[in-house]
Amino acid sequence: MINNSLLDRAFTACAHPIRRGIIERLAGGELTVGEATGDFGVSKPAISRHLRVLEEAGAITRVIDGRNHRLRLTEQGLAGARDWISQRALWERKFDVIDEYLATRRLADGDGRE
Amino acid sequence: MINNSLLDRAFTACAHPIRRGIIERLAGGELTVGEATGDFGVSKPAISRHLRVLEEAGAITRVIDGRNHRLRLTEQGLAGARDWISQRALWERKFDVIDEYLATRRLADGDGRE
Repeated sequence: MINNSLLDRAFTACAHPIRRGIIERLAGGELTVGEATGDFGVSKPAISRHLRVLEEAGAITRVIDGRNHRLRLTEQGLAGARDWISQRALWERKFDVIDEYLATRRLADGDGRE
Repeated sequence: MINNSLLDRAFTACAHPIRRGIIERLAGGELTVGEATGDFGVSKPAISRHLRVLEEAGAITRVIDGRNHRLRLTEQGLAGARDWISQRALWERKFDVIDEYLATRRLADGDGRE
């Protein structure tokens, strides 16, 4: 099982529109902090807190190049959260439906033979 | 664009191991509140708060059948969150890589011809 607190942090990182906005901008590639966080209409301390949440979740990383801080998405950052929400919540229910269908088929086949 | 506050609530719903545990149990089908929430080792008020977060996110629904409260996952509950985390954060970066590859190819083809 994937580390719980990492999943907690990854989902928390996605649970705010500004943080999702930053992730969406970085999905296109590396950006300066200004490019990634400008125009959200919130204070610099608020932006810093959002960036910290994203960094602690392992969703983004900061590349320090002299005076420039550039941000990029990490390779694995949200993969655990994506995998959890895709497989568990969605697919297991579908497998259930398939199981039910197969059980019904077996019952019908059995009835046919006897 | 998907309603922001709904996405906020969906990701918040997933950001706690007990709430993910409840979702995982319900992925197998409808359960009583006791079955869905037992053995987590937390108080009843804490469980109630987790259930409220899940209900407000539209992730689960409560079927009241006389004295029995049964819980089930909703059809669409986490679909928005799943779609956001799957497409935006993952695929757009892959498209970027494909674009880069195609640009490189065009450059290489151009070089070949001239």
